[in-house]
Parts: sequence; C-alpha cells; structure tokens
Amino acid sequence: MRKYKNLFLGLLGVFALMTSCNNQGKSSSGGALGSNAADRVYVGPGEYDEFYAFFSGGYTGNLTVYGLPSGRMFKEIPVFSQFPTNGYGYSEETKPMLNTSFGFVPWDDSHHPDISQTNGELDGRWIFINGNNTPRIARIDLTTFETAEIIEVPNSAGNHSSSFITENTEYVVAGTRFAVPVPQRDMPIKDYKGNFKGALSFISVAPETGRMDIKFQLMMPGFNYDLSHPGRGKSHGWFFFTTYNTEEASTLLEVNASQNDKDFIAAVNWKKIEEYVNNGGGTMMPAEYAHNVYDDDTHMATSTMKKEVLTVDPTKVPGAVYFLPTPKSPHGCDVDPSGEYIVGNGKLSADLTVHSFTKMLAAIENEKFDGEAYGIPILKFEDVLAGVVSQPGLGPLHTEFDGKGNAYTTFFISSEVVKWKLGTWEVLDRQPSYYSVGHGMIPGGNSQKPFGKYFVSMNKITKDRYLPVGPEMEHSAQLYDISGDKMELLLDFPTHGEPHYAAAIPAEILMPKVKKIFKLSENKHPYAAITPNDTKLVRDGKVVHVYMSTIRSHFTPDNIEGIKVGDKVYFHVTNQEQDFDVPHGFAMIGATNAELLIAPGQTKTLLWEPKKVGVWPFYCTDFCSALHQEMQGYVRVSPANSDLELSWSLGED
Amino acid sequence: MRKYKNLFLGLLGVFALMTSCNNQGKSSSGGALGSNAADRVYVGPGEYDEFYAFFSGGYTGNLTVYGLPSGRMFKEIPVFSQFPTNGYGYSEETKPMLNTSFGFVPWDDSHHPDISQTNGELDGRWIFINGNNTPRIARIDLTTFETAEIIEVPNSAGNHSSSFITENTEYVVAGTRFAVPVPQRDMPIKDYKGNFKGALSFISVAPETGRMDIKFQLMMPGFNYDLSHPGRGKSHGWFFFTTYNTEEASTLLEVNASQNDKDFIAAVNWKKIEEYVNNGGGTMMPAEYAHNVYDDDTHMATSTMKKEVLTVDPTKVPGAVYFLPTPKSPHGCDVDPSGEYIVGNGKLSADLTVHSFTKMLAAIENEKFDGEAYGIPILKFEDVLAGVVSQPGLGPLHTEFDGKGNAYTTFFISSEVVKWKLGTWEVLDRQPSYYSVGHGMIPGGNSQKPFGKYFVSMNKITKDRYLPVGPEMEHSAQLYDISGDKMELLLDFPTHGEPHYAAAIPAEILMPKVKKIFKLSENKHPYAAITPNDTKLVRDGKVVHVYMSTIRSHFTPDNIEGIKVGDKVYFHVTNQEQDFDVPHGFAMIGATNAELLIAPGQTKTLLWEPKKVGVWPFYCTDFCSALHQEMQGYVRVSPANSDLELSWSLGED
Repeated sequence: MRKYKNLFLGLLGVFALMTSCNNQGKSSSGGALGSNAADRVYVGPGEYDEFYAFFSGGYTGNLTVYGLPSGRMFKEIPVFSQFPTNGYGYSEETKPMLNTSFGFVPWDDSHHPDISQTNGELDGRWIFINGNNTPRIARIDLTTFETAEIIEVPNSAGNHSSSFITENTEYVVAGTRFAVPVPQRDMPIKDYKGNFKGALSFISVAPETGRMDIKFQLMMPGFNYDLSHPGRGKSHGWFFFTTYNTEEASTLLEVNASQNDKDFIAAVNWKKIEEYVNNGGGTMMPAEYAHNVYDDDTHMATSTMKKEVLTVDPTKVPGAVYFLPTPKSPHGCDVDPSGEYIVGNGKLSADLTVHSFTKMLAAIENEKFDGEAYGIPILKFEDVLAGVVSQPGLGPLHTEFDGKGNAYTTFFISSEVVKWKLGTWEVLDRQPSYYSVGHGMIPGGNSQKPFGKYFVSMNKITKDRYLPVGPEMEHSAQLYDISGDKMELLLDFPTHGEPHYAAAIPAEILMPKVKKIFKLSENKHPYAAITPNDTKLVRDGKVVHVYMSTIRSHFTPDNIEGIKVGDKVYFHVTNQEQDFDVPHGFAMIGATNAELLIAPGQTKTLLWEPKKVGVWPFYCTDFCSALHQEMQGYVRVSPANSDLELSWSLGED
Repeated sequence: MRKYKNLFLGLLGVFALMTSCNNQGKSSSGGALGSNAADRVYVGPGEYDEFYAFFSGGYTGNLTVYGLPSGRMFKEIPVFSQFPTNGYGYSEETKPMLNTSFGFVPWDDSHHPDISQTNGELDGRWIFINGNNTPRIARIDLTTFETAEIIEVPNSAGNHSSSFITENTEYVVAGTRFAVPVPQRDMPIKDYKGNFKGALSFISVAPETGRMDIKFQLMMPGFNYDLSHPGRGKSHGWFFFTTYNTEEASTLLEVNASQNDKDFIAAVNWKKIEEYVNNGGGTMMPAEYAHNVYDDDTHMATSTMKKEVLTVDPTKVPGAVYFLPTPKSPHGCDVDPSGEYIVGNGKLSADLTVHSFTKMLAAIENEKFDGEAYGIPILKFEDVLAGVVSQPGLGPLHTEFDGKGNAYTTFFISSEVVKWKLGTWEVLDRQPSYYSVGHGMIPGGNSQKPFGKYFVSMNKITKDRYLPVGPEMEHSAQLYDISGDKMELLLDFPTHGEPHYAAAIPAEILMPKVKKIFKLSENKHPYAAITPNDTKLVRDGKVVHVYMSTIRSHFTPDNIEGIKVGDKVYFHVTNQEQDFDVPHGFAMIGATNAELLIAPGQTKTLLWEPKKVGVWPFYCTDFCSALHQEMQGYVRVSPANSDLELSWSLGED
C-alpha cells in the first residue's frame, strides 16, 4: 500500500505546484510530473550537463556517452565492434584492435564499465569495459574518448563478472561466467561437474600508462561467476564474486542451476595472492591470447599474441579464498562505500542478504567453517551475515549506494527500485521502473565517494514507453532524483543497444582533460603527410602507397593516374587541420571496408582494391566548409597490363 | 541589429516569467530560455512524442529514428552498413543486402530520407534513403522499421541528389553527384570536359509492394548534380535538380568549380520521358547492378545482379529538359507546397533566387531561350525568375516550408535560419544556429501538406555545445518552435553520425501501423524450428545445420556434440516467443561475425567455423527473463578426424 500512498501524495504536490504557477507554455504531453521534472532535466542550448555517464552498449559491443540529467547521447565509442561510422575495425590502423586468438572478431557484448580510481575516488583517467562473448577487457582513454587497449582473457568463457577495478586501479578484474575445460580439450559435456574450471583473472594496470597485463588467473571450481566488486576502504585488498550454478549442471540451467538453497559469494584476498605470485608462486601455463595496443602518436594499433599465463590454484594459498553462503543464485555483488557491507542480490531469494566484512574476518580468524568446496573453506552463513532486508521485492539484481548510508536495489520481477538503509535494513522508499530493471547506477556508486544526486535504472523491457519502432527496440533508462528522502522519477530516455551497467562522473573532473585535436607536430605515423611536400605516390609491386593530405577544401592529390586493376592501394590520409571539430572524411566508391573519419592531426589508412578499369571518384564525407561539396578527386584505373606511369596532380587541368 | 533586439526582448520575457513563477526545482542549468522551453520539449515518463523524425546517418550509412519535441533517439535502423548490434550484414539472411557490383560493400554515406506520399501527402508506408558512396537507394518498411530493399544505381558516382519521391510515390529519384565516363573506361582525367556524363535515375516504385526498378536513366551533361526535389501540385510531373561545376573542372574544384556566375537548375519533365520510354524510346545499355530484396516471410534477403539499364539522351526528347540559370553553385533545390516556387540556394550567391513554375512554362511556350548547353535549352533567367530574397544571409544551403506561406532557409556561413515570405520575399525573422547549419527540416516539409509546428536545424559544427568527448564528436540538431510569428529555439540535441537531412511525420499516422512481432505461423524460413519438434541437426559433408529454437529461458538444443574442427556450422535460431519486446540473442564464443538478435517469430542464421577442439559456450545476449543468465549451452568440438556422431540434448545430464 505504501507505494500508492506516496504516489498519491506526489501527485497532490505536483498539482499544487501547477495550480499556483500557471505556466503559459505547458505542453499537454508534460505528464503527471509536470513542469518541475521538466525543468530539472532540461539542459538549455549552450548549457552543459552535470555528469558524464558511460553506458555499456551490451550487444553493440561499444560504450556510449550520455549527459545527465538531460539523457542526451554525446558519443558512441567503438570498442569491441566494427564501427562503419569512423572506420574502426575497417581502417588499417584499427584492424589489429579486434584481433584475438580466434582470429578477427568484429563484435562483442560489453557489459560493465568502471572508471579508474585513485584512493578509492574516481580520477577520470580511463574507463574499462568487458567483452563477454570472446573474453576481452578494453581500456578507453578519457582524454581522447578512444579505445586505447584490448587484452584477451584466456581460459575464460562469457567474461561476465568483469570489469571492475580496485581502489587505486591496481587491477582490473575479469571473471568467467561459464566454466570450461582448462586447458580446452575434446571431452563430453556431461562430464562437466568437477572437471570444468572457472578462471578469475587479475589484470594489472600500469600506474602511469594504464597498460594492462594479466598478473594471474585464479583457477576456481567450475561454477558460473556472475558479478564481482572490489573491497574498498577497510576491505581494500579483497575482491568479491557471486557464483551461481554451484550445482555444476551442464544442461537446462533454468531448472538445474536453481536447485541449491544457497550459492556462494567468493571472497578473494588478492593482496595475499599477489604476494604469493611475487614470491614465485603459481604455475605458468601455455595459453594464446591477443594484446592489442593503440598508440596516439603513430595513430596505429599493434596486436601481439601472448603465449603463456600464470595460474594459481586457490587451495595452494591458504587464507586467500573463502566462500560466503548466499541465497539464491545471487546476481549482483555490491560493496558499500565504507567497504563493510557486501550485498548478495539473490535473484531467486525472498530476502536480500548482506554480509559483514568485519564478521567475515572474525569468522576466518575463528575458523567458523561449514565444510569446504573443492578445498575452499565455506564460512558459516550466520557468522558472516550483517543483516537481511526482509522481502523488499521480487528478483533483486543489483545494489548501488548514495554515500549517505542508503542503498538502492533493483528488482527485475517486481519491476522497481527500492531504497533501504544500511545497518537498519529498513526499506525507506520504492519507485516502479518501466519495465524490469536490470542494473542501477549512481555516479561514483562503485567508489568510496558516490555523488548521490541521481539514480539511473537500466530497464530490460521497453514495450510501450516510446513511440513504437517495430519488433526491435532500444532499451530504456529512467532518471530518478535521489537528493531528497524520496526518489522522484524525472525522465525516461532511450539508450543505444542494451546497456547493462553504467559509470558516471562529474563533468568538472573530466572536462578539463579532454583533448580537442591531435598535434600534427607529434604525428609519428610512418605514412603521414605532415606538410603538402610530403605528398607522394610509391609503388612497390602491386602495392601502392598514397601519402595524401587534406585541408579545407581539397585533397592533395585530387587526381591520381597509373593505378591498375589488381593493385592494393593504401590511401594514407592526414588531416592537416589544427582546429577543433574540423574532421575530414575519405570515401572511395566501391571500397569493401568503410570510410575514414580523420580527426585534426591524425593519419588513417584505407585499403582499396580496384577491380574494374575506369575513372573512380573519392570525396570528403564530413561537411567541413562551404566548399565541402567541391572536395573530391578521381583515380584512373587502367588494365592490369597497362604501362601507364603512376602520377598525381592538384589544380592542373 | 534586428536579431539582437529580438533576443533582448525574449530575455526580458523569460525573466518576467521566471520571477512571477518561482519554480522550486529550477535547475541552474536551465539557461536563459527557462522553464517555458523546458516544458515544451519535455515528454514525461509514459507520454509519447508528437512526431517521428527520421534522420539520415550520414557516414553511419544508417537511418535513425527520433521523437519530437523530445529529441530522443528511439532506434538506429541499419541500411547500408554492417550493424554488429543485431547482426545485420553479418547474419546469413542479411549479407545479401550489402551485395553490389563492386562486391560486398559494408558501408555507405546516407543523406536524404523521404517518406512515401499519396496525393502529395505523407502516407507513412515507406521511407527511402540514398547511399552516396557506392550509389544505392534503400527502401525501409515503416511497419517493421527494417530495410526491405536496396537497389544499386549504375553509371552513377556520389549518389547525392537523391532520394526524393514524386507525389504519388511513382518514382524515387537518384542523381549522380560526380560525372564519370559512361560506360566506365580507362581515360585521362583531364579529358573530363564534354566526355563525362551525369546520370539522373528514375526508379519506379510498385504501388502495392514498394518494389523498386530503374525505369530509365537520363544521361545529362557531365556537371555535378547536387540536390533535387519533385514538382508538386501544379508542377507534378516535373523534377528539379541543382547543378554545380558547370565549368566541368576536374581538379581543385574549390577554385575551379566556382568560376561561373550562374549554374543551372535542370527542370526535367519526367512524365514526358516516361511516355517516351513507354513508347519504346531510349537505349538499353549493358550495366551491372545489384538488386537486393528482404522477404518478411522467409526472413531472408536475396541479391540479384541486373544486367542492363534503359538510358535516355535528353536531346532526343524535345520539351523534356530545360536549364534554369541560377546563381551561384546552388546547393539545395526546394519546391514549395503549392509547386509554384523553385528555390535555388546559391551557396556562393549574395541573394536567394526563386524561380516560378508558371513563368517557366510560359518561357518554354514562348521559347525564351538563352542558348543551350549540350543541346539542352537554357531558359532566360529573367523570364523564369519569381523573385529574389535580397541578402538574407551568407551561404544559403536549403529551404523548407511551413504550409502557411513561409519559407525557412539555412545559412551555413552566417550560421542562421532565416524565415521569409513566399511571394513578397520579405525576411520575417532570423535565429542563430550553433553552428553552421546544413539542412533544415519541417515535418512534411517535402509535401503538399507540411506540419508547420517545428523546424529542426542539422548543424555541421558541434564544438562547444555539449560536454566535450574528444576530437571526434556527434553532430548537433536544434529544435525551433515555428508556430508563432517568431521562431523560438527550444532545444539542442545531439544526433548520431552526421545527419544531413531528415523527414518527419505525425505519430498518429504511423503508430497504428507498426508491427510488434512476426507471426510464427507465417514464418517460411527454410531452416526454421517452428515447434520444438522441428529441432534437429543435419550434417552434409563439412556443413552442419542446427535447427535451433529459443524460448524463455533455454535453447533447444543446449548441448551439441559431434562438431569437428573445420566444419561450417550454421545455427538457424528461431525465436518462438509471440509476445511484444521479447527478443532473444545468440552469441557464440570466437565467432568471426557478430551476434544474432532475433525478434519474436523470426529465424536468423549465424555461421560458425570452429578452429580449435574444446567445449565452447553459447548464450542469449538479450536479458529476456529472470533466468536469462541461465540461458546458455555448449558445443563440443572434436578433431577433424573424429568419428563422434552428431548428437544433441536438452535437460539430460
């Protein structure tokens, strides 16, 4: 009943506001929330949003950047997927970014972004995100908003309990969702139980450069590892992972993985394991995984195939790993800003279970064990329990924190967000979500210092929230104001792809660091045309390199002759502009890749393999000046046996 | 001075409103426009936008769907580009959509959407859009919001003066931007003048099915054809195209194509040419171009390579084509709702030139010619001129109409939108745009019945309008309320890719027609698993077909054995759901294409070529139920020489 009463009071309040304030321009579509909500999400022309919010793209494989409170999308950053828009994954410089041990994999499923931290607070240097399908972790540079690095994660499958970072960005952590044979081998699927493994990977992040490297993989029992979060503050040095399918069923999991009354949260003392491996512990095993790095000076990516990985058997490091029994198929694993409370969102449980880090340490100290699983001690449920939020809703998935002692849990089945108090476990408020909320997000919610002004729900069912657009729809987010005692729903906004989780940061932290151009003087691309004098054509057998430059409003050269059918023509296009927001595009008719979108100071390369004789045009795709439509050129393609010399020109008819 | 005075009065008004109405929740980011603008663009949770707006994606190659007035993006419809999000261009069913005479072309540059019409009014059946780079026209079905058909345009290059439709959707018209040799041949670029051609293609649209076919190509002189619009009402039966580079320069066009004081608008009497070709006129010439059609029943596309095209020499059809001299390098070519006025937006001209259709007919009747170009009569400028808007701004690009006798022209260089009166040519109002506006759009603006409530400017420079996101940014649109005497800027909203033009339609026309599911009973996919009994595995040499079904929350089968290294495994996945908004996804680790996103009732196919032995997982990518995380399966891959039989199971451990 409580929620309806609140809704009624809320409506009364809005009504009072509307009658006392007769807004002339009030639209009929304003809805029950009226002008107050409209004002609070409106960011007028020329004004800025208060927060950057980074939403995972889910099955887009990318990361999108929104402003809050407006809900406007400012950018889609290509990460794991080909992006025809700017040629990512099509241009020669970026193809290596999508290399894996399986070959060129042009798509993934990105879930959980996390912003780098220093001393447990967001520092805004990088944002990390996982690819679930072909296990990978990416690092995005938050000065350029471009993907700087991707590392593949071997021995993993369905890289879901990822990517979460420790409070000084020591590690970005990636846990397998699916257990698999390690090493992979041809074996019956029904022999899964006891034979498959679950790898939890601790990937070190170099403090200055952000460069990633797999420090070690913890080879855990073959459960499904769903989500994870770092300890922080007092629990810094630990990492917590939810598990499900502790039944180790290998078929019809919707039935067979829901048998156990409790699954586990795995508590991993990574500092202890780090010490162990620093002292020579662990086993190096053969493994094949790609490490792809983009260099902002050469404007090029390189891909290196790594050949081994250090693995750790958790039973060999006493005191490093414990299981905390947690009802029931827990999904989200969330740690409050103080580091004391570990929330297990048991998606099939009636109650919400919260563990105490302090009690956990005491239970370990006092060896309050309830048996073991594959040699890993199971702590007694009652001895680690901090408290229970009683029957708060149906299907809890994830919990966020506002830094004021409150937690906000999303409920998929009862489709609502519930605010409750840490320590008293009292439910304080609830708001419906439209519909079936997955993750929620509070800016800085995964740090010691949340910015508890807004809560964003990421909803899984869109249905009738917007004008219908056919059987396939975008997902929907909702913005709630949580600055007061009660949550207030302000806005529905569609999101791109299927965002799972998001991370947000105050604009004032990030904005001053953002790059606007690349300096031409720092361009170290081997085929760059830094000045018009660098323009040239070089033939090497059937390979032709075109060192091309572009500046408003022409290409140099704009006419090329002597290309032959069967040639491989590499157009290396340098944008010589040094003004903000003057990209140029390069498109070639019939190219079987994409365009190039070239930022000021950058060089990018398109491979073109002409198959037909003729005179073929290229042009600039980005409307760059009043004479943009004049920015074009031609390539003459002669037969393969032609003896026409390579030549180029500009301005000589 | 006028615009500053208006701005000042506007500010005063807002100030009065703000002080008389003390909104408690007023955000500091509301800006000078205050709550009134906020209210007018706010579409509250659960409420609907008034208009659907379809924005071209520019270099995304796609089409995006927005709501107005909210500026929220509801969908990106993949058209000419691979779309990892749902597997378009990666799935076996959709790959044929991107086939061309150049091979598989996974990207394009989409510019000008236009909604189908009946009797000159928007009917909302289909929307057409052009691919500039590898010349193509696409038709999108507005019941499914999916690309239904793509036809390549031969003899064309830079398909820019496209795609605009006639008032009963008799034709969608596509004009080349770049002149090329026709047929293509190996010839010196400098011999362009007099030797290259410009093809204007009239593509018929079948009244019931929408099916496209090239009726004829008009082989015009080798100018650049920039934009076009149909005649309407009294001028129905004519089509108007702007030209530039009538100098026929082939290099450094930014200088050499700006020499002539006037270029032309080409007026084409397509009804006369239609009659000519219906009576056997024209020349069939060999040509190779793809025609790709998607079938909603089989859920599959087919690609057919066509072998010839009918061409028409304009000099062979007396009275069919005339040139209207138009200052200076005119960009947009816009026809008012009555069909009387043809606006030539001379981008390098001080004034805006408007031609009169009535005067044009009279001049033709009276043979008021000013010479000819390549055998095409040039009408006398003064005899076709309706009027001139004197010095309205710098760099006019495009003009839209509100249906109330007013025109709205965008000025790129002076960065503003100028409202003026048809007939009196008087400037009525002006508003700055931020920054450098290209096209503008009024819903229904390209029809006899515009819905003159909003004007949207599509701006080419974004710079500082939003939080910075690195050197590469989205473009920006601005929404103006034009229902009153003066335009009012309401909202800045970012757009996806580089929208050039847009088309919008009242929600009430489109909404009732939109499909929410595909009926499983109508699914004619040859590999569909309509019922669980249809599930099977079929091996044919190294090819394995998996007839797979999916329903909350499992795949059938979920375990597959007997697959071998080197096999080509086709997963044909049928979504057996029949509820709105319950798609399932299918992702396979290490696949070198993308995922499948399968709408209810649909079948889609992913090819997987396993290269390593092992036990490899697949899973559902769309969070479909509380047990979505349990929706997974494994494929056992044995060595190439294994004799393990193909087998599958579900629920049998």
